[in-house]
Amino acid sequence: MAGSGIGTVFRATTWGESHGAGLGAVVDGCPAGIPMDEEYIQTFLDRRKPGGRAFSTPRKEDDRVRILSGVFEGKTTGTPISLMIENTSQRSQDYGNLATTYRPGHADFGFDAKYGFRDYRGGGRSSGRETAGRVAAGAIAAKFLEMQGIHISSWVSAIGPVKCDPERFDTDEIMNNAFCMPDAAAAAEAEIYLRKLMEEKDSTGSEVTCVVTGMPAGVGEPVFDKLDARLGQAIFSIGAVKAVEIGDGTGVVKARGSENNDPFRIQNGRVVKSSNHSGGILGGISDGGDILIRASFKPTPSIFREQQTVNKDGEEVELSIKGRHDPVIGPRAAVVVETMTALTIADLLLLQRTNRWE
Amino acid sequence: MAGSGIGTVFRATTWGESHGAGLGAVVDGCPAGIPMDEEYIQTFLDRRKPGGRAFSTPRKEDDRVRILSGVFEGKTTGTPISLMIENTSQRSQDYGNLATTYRPGHADFGFDAKYGFRDYRGGGRSSGRETAGRVAAGAIAAKFLEMQGIHISSWVSAIGPVKCDPERFDTDEIMNNAFCMPDAAAAAEAEIYLRKLMEEKDSTGSEVTCVVTGMPAGVGEPVFDKLDARLGQAIFSIGAVKAVEIGDGTGVVKARGSENNDPFRIQNGRVVKSSNHSGGILGGISDGGDILIRASFKPTPSIFREQQTVNKDGEEVELSIKGRHDPVIGPRAAVVVETMTALTIADLLLLQRTNRWE
Amino acid sequence: MAGSGIGTVFRATTWGESHGAGLGAVVDGCPAGIPMDEEYIQTFLDRRKPGGRAFSTPRKEDDRVRILSGVFEGKTTGTPISLMIENTSQRSQDYGNLATTYRPGHADFGFDAKYGFRDYRGGGRSSGRETAGRVAAGAIAAKFLEMQGIHISSWVSAIGPVKCDPERFDTDEIMNNAFCMPDAAAAAEAEIYLRKLMEEKDSTGSEVTCVVTGMPAGVGEPVFDKLDARLGQAIFSIGAVKAVEIGDGTGVVKARGSENNDPFRIQNGRVVKSSNHSGGILGGISDGGDILIRASFKPTPSIFREQQTVNKDGEEVELSIKGRHDPVIGPRAAVVVETMTALTIADLLLLQRTNRWE
Amino acid sequence: MAGSGIGTVFRATTWGESHGAGLGAVVDGCPAGIPMDEEYIQTFLDRRKPGGRAFSTPRKEDDRVRILSGVFEGKTTGTPISLMIENTSQRSQDYGNLATTYRPGHADFGFDAKYGFRDYRGGGRSSGRETAGRVAAGAIAAKFLEMQGIHISSWVSAIGPVKCDPERFDTDEIMNNAFCMPDAAAAAEAEIYLRKLMEEKDSTGSEVTCVVTGMPAGVGEPVFDKLDARLGQAIFSIGAVKAVEIGDGTGVVKARGSENNDPFRIQNGRVVKSSNHSGGILGGISDGGDILIRASFKPTPSIFREQQTVNKDGEEVELSIKGRHDPVIGPRAAVVVETMTALTIADLLLLQRTNRWE
Repeated sequence: MAGSGIGTVFRATTWGESHGAGLGAVVDGCPAGIPMDEEYIQTFLDRRKPGGRAFSTPRKEDDRVRILSGVFEGKTTGTPISLMIENTSQRSQDYGNLATTYRPGHADFGFDAKYGFRDYRGGGRSSGRETAGRVAAGAIAAKFLEMQGIHISSWVSAIGPVKCDPERFDTDEIMNNAFCMPDAAAAAEAEIYLRKLMEEKDSTGSEVTCVVTGMPAGVGEPVFDKLDARLGQAIFSIGAVKAVEIGDGTGVVKARGSENNDPFRIQNGRVVKSSNHSGGILGGISDGGDILIRASFKPTPSIFREQQTVNKDGEEVELSIKGRHDPVIGPRAAVVVETMTALTIADLLLLQRTNRWE
Repeated sequence: MAGSGIGTVFRATTWGESHGAGLGAVVDGCPAGIPMDEEYIQTFLDRRKPGGRAFSTPRKEDDRVRILSGVFEGKTTGTPISLMIENTSQRSQDYGNLATTYRPGHADFGFDAKYGFRDYRGGGRSSGRETAGRVAAGAIAAKFLEMQGIHISSWVSAIGPVKCDPERFDTDEIMNNAFCMPDAAAAAEAEIYLRKLMEEKDSTGSEVTCVVTGMPAGVGEPVFDKLDARLGQAIFSIGAVKAVEIGDGTGVVKARGSENNDPFRIQNGRVVKSSNHSGGILGGISDGGDILIRASFKPTPSIFREQQTVNKDGEEVELSIKGRHDPVIGPRAAVVVETMTALTIADLLLLQRTNRWE
Repeated sequence: MAGSGIGTVFRATTWGESHGAGLGAVVDGCPAGIPMDEEYIQTFLDRRKPGGRAFSTPRKEDDRVRILSGVFEGKTTGTPISLMIENTSQRSQDYGNLATTYRPGHADFGFDAKYGFRDYRGGGRSSGRETAGRVAAGAIAAKFLEMQGIHISSWVSAIGPVKCDPERFDTDEIMNNAFCMPDAAAAAEAEIYLRKLMEEKDSTGSEVTCVVTGMPAGVGEPVFDKLDARLGQAIFSIGAVKAVEIGDGTGVVKARGSENNDPFRIQNGRVVKSSNHSGGILGGISDGGDILIRASFKPTPSIFREQQTVNKDGEEVELSIKGRHDPVIGPRAAVVVETMTALTIADLLLLQRTNRWE
Repeated sequence: MAGSGIGTVFRATTWGESHGAGLGAVVDGCPAGIPMDEEYIQTFLDRRKPGGRAFSTPRKEDDRVRILSGVFEGKTTGTPISLMIENTSQRSQDYGNLATTYRPGHADFGFDAKYGFRDYRGGGRSSGRETAGRVAAGAIAAKFLEMQGIHISSWVSAIGPVKCDPERFDTDEIMNNAFCMPDAAAAAEAEIYLRKLMEEKDSTGSEVTCVVTGMPAGVGEPVFDKLDARLGQAIFSIGAVKAVEIGDGTGVVKARGSENNDPFRIQNGRVVKSSNHSGGILGGISDGGDILIRASFKPTPSIFREQQTVNKDGEEVELSIKGRHDPVIGPRAAVVVETMTALTIADLLLLQRTNRWE
């Protein structure tokens, strides 16, 4: 099994390697009648490469998405939507010892242990470029959710020791700086920190926050397909994520029940909660509050320092990685967290339609 | 959909409510030929109620498991293993206003929003008792893994502000105290803290740690069925979990690549890592190191203080929960984390057999 | 994988062997709010043993079904419904050489080739008794469909050379004779034929017909989950079925398009068809006509003549089967075809709710 | 749900419409290390248009397949294989009343009932062209099976009243005539019959036979994923199939057990059967004999006679279909039956690796 598909009724299957002919996804089970075009999807893909030239890979790929099926006269037809992004900047390249050497922090060794060999060009299937297919597929899910009044947004909430200050939260700022941070001061500080790291040939971890608003109560299945369980799979399936938190996350360990329980009350005739420690999910089912998700990304494993490692022949070797690599993953990954969240919620929202007999 | 099944080829489906006739699970796809009996499974179930009488629900249920099918002459046959645990202590009981009132921190409101009504007796399907079926099913997975040389253990690493000290880690101590803590001093401290909380009619959060040893490299599928993605779903599917961490977890946000990358080296002719920040998983595939998992459990939501909430009729009401409830979830949940981990790894280990043509 | 579950959102998982503790099923994803009790399900199970004493196994099993979960105050709750039928007539029995000898026409050899050994008591998991769990699960699906105005019926349309005459079709007769035949004259003829066969220690094949009325158009997914594809899997999953036909079935080979195409016309403002060669399915999607299914059952493989076969040690041996076996499968299998059809349609009907964005 | 994927571990997802940008498939879970190139897959696609110019659609599509991912240095990598066939002969065309009129025998009405509208160009997703993706995907499965010593072949065994004579069976003849018939005399007769039908603006049904040799015993799961159940789904998922038969098929209804049971015996130390009425499958598990499958295809529904039908506005109308349509489906569908069989067996063969603990 290769596990390249996710979702039960709204299902995305991705394909493609970093340096093959292209990457893409097939979205199967998108409901019929949703307005859709390539431009809409492109806006999500474009967010995978935020403007910060100094800090993200300058590989000149346009990453133009094509819709190959499933859309007719501007609307989804209910049949599979095939999405393709050609790899335009492939060049015959010398991968040198990367074909046989296991980069620390990368999946190289695991792939060889798994399959006996691997497509070593640019990380192959384990490259961050694999997320292009997810983002294109998730954009379609996000559109469906918007038509249901559900909106998802995401941003970088921390880069190394630099944390955004909730007091300075400014939505417009997210698209305004190179780091997708909603806090201009933190972004400025992060820039200084990253310049220093790059001088030191090093990289840093980061944290992405994602919020879902307009969420109805009752979504998520009670046992193994809990809303948070499905989000857990979806977010951990993004390379480099080492922690996923819902609501107060790890903070609940020290909390007391009297603090952590969100009191219910009535507002304008509707059941609401006075606080949202739960992050919008109780017992795996949405409680009507905003869904709050945090993902911790490890530092970019490709660093330019010389590293100790081994090769396929079982020899210990020194490795020097060349090329261009972002020193931090979060800024380009925020839209990936957002679209994986969209895919997850779209699926569970549709499944909820099957739970009552009427 | 009700989502009561998990796993692709090693699949567990659970059923049952807190106060119905019983609870159970069907394990479909367990390989043939594994020694199995009720006593073995019972040892896992017994761990759901650690000795600490003062701190866990004294409801007198023997929770005796019966194997109804799939085992013949002491070995699994490859056909579905049906497991049943009868609810013996049911009594006609007055649920009072719990039938119509939404307990804060519980799934009551979500269930009503989802299905229009709910089995309100003891939380019904959202009760912690639902995990009995998981534990019984996961015990079978654990046995299969042991025959492959893979061992899983789990313990409580923190209760509220009390953390176990790695310096004092003692495996034998885990089964020795009421809190499943591998550190006797921390357990003593936790006991004092919990007595105080109970006096204050309050509860606390906790952290469970789970470690998998003997894990071969190459397990886990590269994209959506990454080993950590599957673990993410499995652990978040346990009620009250609000964060899941792999390896360094949230600690990676502040880390540098040069620290976080685990150098590969050769030891006795095998590829090993000098450190294990990755928690045994790189790019979603096991790297041969121990798998390290942490789960953050929120405080028990059933507290004895009066709480503000609403009822089904849209009225704001005061709620007083009676009965007996553990003031902390971790000690009884450690074995649940362990068995959910076993189910996840058993499935991916079997799937790995399908990835090469030979 | 053991493949004991079927269905995407309305999913049944069966368990149990002929001579184990019992048999059962877990129905996961049945919508909430459907009236349900054990008596209703029992009426389906009772049809597995039609009155004809002379012609069906007299094993005295009451086959009483118990609902263990998922029903509260007489209605389904949306959570898994666990169904159990205890095996009451187990006795320590001498299986003689059946433990090591491969019965012709049975799965014994396949099971040993598959798993290395098998539960040989009464055929274990490959026994016809396995269908008890399906029938109980399918009864629940049938109830859900009835609430949607969809009704399913089934009968035996042929036993060996004896065919029911459509001119003499009488619904009431189906429950009236030992063979579930809607034609009293054919039933009388079948009885004579079967008596002769039994004297000759032989058995015969049979055909079951199943009809679904009240079916809305638009159900069934266009490619691999076509309504007929799903029915094909469901009906072929019943042991002893060697052919499945929809509408005109094998008759289409000799037909012309001008005959086989059903003209559409308008009746009372609705689109209907003037004929129903399609059996209610076009392009895998229901066309609003009645669904017509036929299943060909092979002769009972357990016959009392001495047969040539081999044993586990690779020796050629003579086999004499003893005990009691029906000389024809169809009469007890009709309700199995009906309930497998119900499970299939319930699942696809619910899935159809996910196909439009509104 | 759109149900465009099939298989558990060897999974194919198809996409594309008759007149969109192209068609294709993603094969996920193909084991690593299988030699693969576009030429090999092309040989299967080429068989979808047998030479018989007079009898098959002359639409000039090259149907050239491209491998976009999952193959590296001539071998499958274990990651998803994306296959694409561009639609090269699209032209802006006048579909006239086909956009609003429901063709008898087609899925037009079902699609509108399902989704509210449809891509009416050339049948959209319900076009026979959809099978191009299946054939490309199935070619990969066939290659994997060949490496396991399993070979699949298929042919047309009947066209209307013309049946191939088993006495004249000649494998080489299959590729030699326009009808994929292994009997030159029958092919000549079929040609005469078809010419007559075309003069009469009519079409005919046909039968395809498929045989799998080299099949090991033990493949297929005992209950819902029986080998024949999975084949039933796979073959019925091909448009226009109205019956699927395994082994003796509908012939079993009249058979006696003493005839139908295949005696086991020992040959060269191996368990074999003296006959093969079972078609290689007993109790859903392969018995080591050749798998025998027959599929009945209905007559091509697109005929040139004027037909009675209705339109979307609920009016009764006369319909005249123009363009070019094969008068018989079988000759182009034989390779589709073969590749769907390959996909099914590849999946179950891999799953069988997960059934024993060793």
